[in-house]
Parts: sequence; C-alpha cells; structure tokens
Amino acid sequence: MFHGGDTFSYKGKFNGKIIDYSSNINPMGPPKALKAELLKAYEELTSYPDIQYRELRHNIAKYLKCDYREVIVGSGAMELISNMCLLFNRIVVFVPCFGEYIKRPKVLGKEVITLKMDENFKITFDSLKNTLRKDDLLILGNPNNPTGLRIEKEVLLKLYEIVKEKDAFLLLDEAFYEFCPEDYDSIELFREEEKVCVVRAATKFFALPGIRLGYAFVNETFREKYIKIESPWSVNSYANAAGRVIFKDKAYIEKVKRETEKERNFMLNKLSNINWIRSFESHTNFILIKLLKGEEDEIFDKLIYKGFMIRKASSFEGLDKTYIRLAVKDRESNEALIRALEEIKL
Amino acid sequence: MFHGGDTFSYKGKFNGKIIDYSSNINPMGPPKALKAELLKAYEELTSYPDIQYRELRHNIAKYLKCDYREVIVGSGAMELISNMCLLFNRIVVFVPCFGEYIKRPKVLGKEVITLKMDENFKITFDSLKNTLRKDDLLILGNPNNPTGLRIEKEVLLKLYEIVKEKDAFLLLDEAFYEFCPEDYDSIELFREEEKVCVVRAATKFFALPGIRLGYAFVNETFREKYIKIESPWSVNSYANAAGRVIFKDKAYIEKVKRETEKERNFMLNKLSNINWIRSFESHTNFILIKLLKGEEDEIFDKLIYKGFMIRKASSFEGLDKTYIRLAVKDRESNEALIRALEEIKL
Repeated sequence: MFHGGDTFSYKGKFNGKIIDYSSNINPMGPPKALKAELLKAYEELTSYPDIQYRELRHNIAKYLKCDYREVIVGSGAMELISNMCLLFNRIVVFVPCFGEYIKRPKVLGKEVITLKMDENFKITFDSLKNTLRKDDLLILGNPNNPTGLRIEKEVLLKLYEIVKEKDAFLLLDEAFYEFCPEDYDSIELFREEEKVCVVRAATKFFALPGIRLGYAFVNETFREKYIKIESPWSVNSYANAAGRVIFKDKAYIEKVKRETEKERNFMLNKLSNINWIRSFESHTNFILIKLLKGEEDEIFDKLIYKGFMIRKASSFEGLDKTYIRLAVKDRESNEALIRALEEIKL
Repeated sequence: MFHGGDTFSYKGKFNGKIIDYSSNINPMGPPKALKAELLKAYEELTSYPDIQYRELRHNIAKYLKCDYREVIVGSGAMELISNMCLLFNRIVVFVPCFGEYIKRPKVLGKEVITLKMDENFKITFDSLKNTLRKDDLLILGNPNNPTGLRIEKEVLLKLYEIVKEKDAFLLLDEAFYEFCPEDYDSIELFREEEKVCVVRAATKFFALPGIRLGYAFVNETFREKYIKIESPWSVNSYANAAGRVIFKDKAYIEKVKRETEKERNFMLNKLSNINWIRSFESHTNFILIKLLKGEEDEIFDKLIYKGFMIRKASSFEGLDKTYIRLAVKDRESNEALIRALEEIKL
C-alpha cells in the first residue's frame, strides 16, 4: 500500500529539508497549551490508561456536542475504521477513496465492493441502490480523499435513506472535517440515527499524526456492540492527555479554519494560471490535480529535487498517472511550491 | 473481557491512592533518560512517523541481538498478536492464558481451539500432537499469564519440533521476558527458524503501559508477509522516541531484574506463612494464588477497602473463583500487602 508522508525514503535527494506536500497536516502545528499538558502526562505513562477512557470520551463529547456514551475512541481514525469493518459482512466504497478503506477490510477477510464515482467525483445513487444489502458497511470520506470534496447535505440525507432502507450502515470518515466550510455537522444531522458512525481525528486538523488519536460518534446502543470487539488500552496516555486541551482552544480552531480557506483559495487561484494543470474544486486542505501534460513520476522527480514531496495519485483506484494531490500549507511554502510548479515547462 | 489495572472503577472505595496489585508493571518506573527524550519528541508529533519505523527497528534489533529486517513493531504487544492471528487459519492456545489470545482471534472471525494445561499448569504434548494442524497458530505465554511459569528450554524445543512437523506456527508472547531468570533467550534459540514469532514489549518491564510499544522477532521472509497486512503508522511518535533510550540502559535493566527476583522471593516466602493461601512457583513479577479458604470476591472486597486492588482470576478460562493473582512490587508496598493479607482471618 502506497501512502503519502514518507519523506524518510527521500532523504538525500535534496540538499535541505523536504517540504511535505504529500500529507495533509495543518502547518500551524497543535494548540499552544498542548506542550505543557504532555509534559505533565509523562507521569501517567507508568499506569494503564482507563480501559473505558471515560475522561477522554467526556472531553470529546463536549467538543462534538453529543453524550459521552455516544463516543468511541481509537489509535487514530484507522483503528476505528478497522474495528468497524469487523462488525459487518461486506464493505462498500466509492472510488477514488483512501486506499485503506479497501485494503484493511480485505486483510480482515471481508468482501469489498468498489463502486465508481461519476466524472465529477460524485456518488452515483443508482449503483448504490443496486448494490447495497443488509449488513453492508458503506464507507465514505467526507470530505473525500483524494478528491477533496464534501458530500452536500441533501445528497448525504438522501443516501442515508438508502442505507436505512437496505438495513445497511454508513461510516463517514470525517478526518478532515474542521478544514471544511461550515455547511452542516454530520453529528448534529444524525444525532438521533442508529445506522451511522462519524469518525474524526486529531491527526490532520490538530496537526498530531504522531499522537494517534481518533474518535467517533455512534448511537449509544451501537456502542454497546462496538466495545465488545475493541482491543484493550489501544489509545496511548499522551493521546488521552491531549484530549484535555486541544478541543478547548476555540481561537486556534477558528484561526486554522480561516487560514486554510485563505490558502486554499490562494493556491487554487495560482494553480489556475499554470497551463499543464487542471485543479479540482476542494473543500479541505488538499487539492486534486489533473495533469494536462506529463505524468506523476516526472512531476514528482522534478519537484523532489526542488525540495517538495507531492502525492502521486495513481495508487488510488479509479485514478491514473495523470493525477497528483497537493496539500494546502502556509503562505511561504505555498508560494515557493507555486514558483517551483511555474518553473516546470512541459 | 475482564482485565486488571482498572483502578478507575474503584475510586472512592478507599480513602487514599489504591495500590494496584492487579496489573504487573515494574514499580521502579522507566529508565531515567526517557523523560528528556520524550520532551524532545514533542517536536516530532506534527509529522507522520517513518511508515517503515527504520530507526526504531534498528534500536530494537540491537537490543534483541538480531537484524532489523527481523523486527516488526506494533502499538503494544496486543496489536502484533492481533495482526499475527490474521495470517493463520486457526488459533490454538493452552488455558489458563491471557484472555485476549482467545477473545481477539474470535473477534477477527478465527476459530480458537483451547487445550487444557495439566494440574501443574504445564503443556500437554499429547493433546498438542493430536490437535495441531497445518496453518494453525499456537500462542503461548512465556512466561505464561496468569500462571507465572516460563516454558523450560527442552520443553520449548520439543514443542517447536511438533509445530514444524505439523507445518503450524508458534507465537511466543514474552511480554514479561526480562523479569525471568536468564536460562535461555528464545530469539537466540530460534534465530534460524522460520515458524516462530517472539513478541516482547516495553509495557511491563520498562514500566510503560501508557506508551504502547510492542515489538517482535520474526524470520526475514515471514516479515515480508507480515508487513503486507499491517495498519500504517500504528506506533506513535513517543513510542518511537522511547526506543532511542530505554534499551540502552544496561544498569537499569540489571537492577530491575535483581530487585524483581528479590521481591518475588520475599513475597513467596511471606505468602507461604498464610494458612489460607497456596502460592504457585513464579518466574516473573506476578504470583498465582490458590485460595484454600474463601473466594476471590471476598478477598478482593476486603483488600480494596484496605487500599489494594488484586486480580480476581476466575475470568481466566481454566481457573475458578478460588484463584487470585498478585503483582510483585516494591518492598514497602509488598510489606503492606502482606500485612493486609495476614490481617484477613478466614
């Protein structure tokens, strides 16, 4: 499985620090109060965390505006998605999507049905209706990776009706939720519903890929079923401690949202002037690009020698070598990347 | 699934800090150099860890005296055991054993065969020979939890021959390895073998249950198979950083070994004078006890009000309410526990 973020394999290709445009981490770093909290958390390492993670779940529930009995936690969003797969017969996905939606269930011995998005990377209702069966788990990225598109509220409600009608279950992977425009909140939307799980994480928005903290909203009755299949103590003490501070910093959250929108617009605008690029609309902190000339390997190689690592996108089922994905970072890096792209003549 | 270590559920039962004799963590805490290293590691949280964990695997390989191509890592021993189960058809265990050897494979949809140890908690070769089939995974705790017994070298070699003959695979869970007498090293013993995985962890000996660091020795060819089914980035940045210092502190390692042996002998000696207790031999930092009078609930309740949490053992398949398990801790705590036990008149 190919993933972004592997700058380790490219050390030495460039005489300096490689700027990682292949993984989509908020460049502003975590909330300021975190460092002091994690310093204290050292003392907690020598005991097992609460096996029920009660304090952590309370902190998350407050942030998500739900009850702590509706919160499950995991070692990153990935563990939650993996565990969710165990509870269903078949997994249904729309491609292109995050590769682990396909790989992980297969590793777990589950059948995976891959449906194709339309040419605008939207879900096709007909194929969903024809495919979805009782006890299927439909996994959708919202916003979706690598396309960067958030599901419109009306579309989401309509597809959830299909899920309910078929007695299937919907997993929304909202790892990039906070970067999006505030059109709706899936948790608020589905608070009274039983056939849905909304997964989020500290990884991307709170800039903490190294801490492994994922969490999800589920119906309280469903949670009873879920906790029976969890591994014990999977969330480490530092992730537990991070939950005490990161969700409270409203000023930080607002600032990151604002900056992301500004930089996304800046990049989309600049990219539109480069003649070998067609960039797709994005609701989040990364941008999918169709290469009108050249292929991903050529662009990757040219950029790695200039100190930028981009995400080749052909490893996403449904895309090919004429797609790449770029993160949205801080203005200085974004300007440097745009200059590097402008220098490439194809 | 019932586990030890859940002091959170008993807050308020005792007017003070409950001493946790239910989980088996080295009471001396982690090596001194760790704190400064983890302080620096804060800066690493905002990037994904190396997806191949090359540095960490090199540090572990040096400690285990093997090649880094023979090392796999996980979020605690538990993730390694869970992933290993995915690679085999059936799981074979001897009870009593750590409950997750039975629960986790079942959650993963695997058939679990439970064989019974003999009355001295030893493996029975006949049942193993009659049961083991091609592509079975035999999981054995070494030393075993909750019995505290290490498999004798000759027994281990003999049973590995059966595993090979049947074309099965052996997983040794050696989470408590360093607490044991230095009779043999399974990794040295099986360095050239292909049908074995030796799992160890920072959790117990290095007193780091909160950091989630497990690692294992496997044959290089087997590792190629294993990494195909791993979840990406499952080891957090702090666990990765811990690997830089904990394995190097030879003086610490020697001291913890020595202290554990001394305290184990102290406790076994004192326990032998209590007439309602029969304690079993132990090679590690916990002791299994047969209650000659009374049952686990009564003893648990009496001790929790005195500030000690013990491990009831009836949740281990193959044991009943007449067993409890005690950790081996520091002299002051051990003396206090022994006094509390002596006060109980049955």
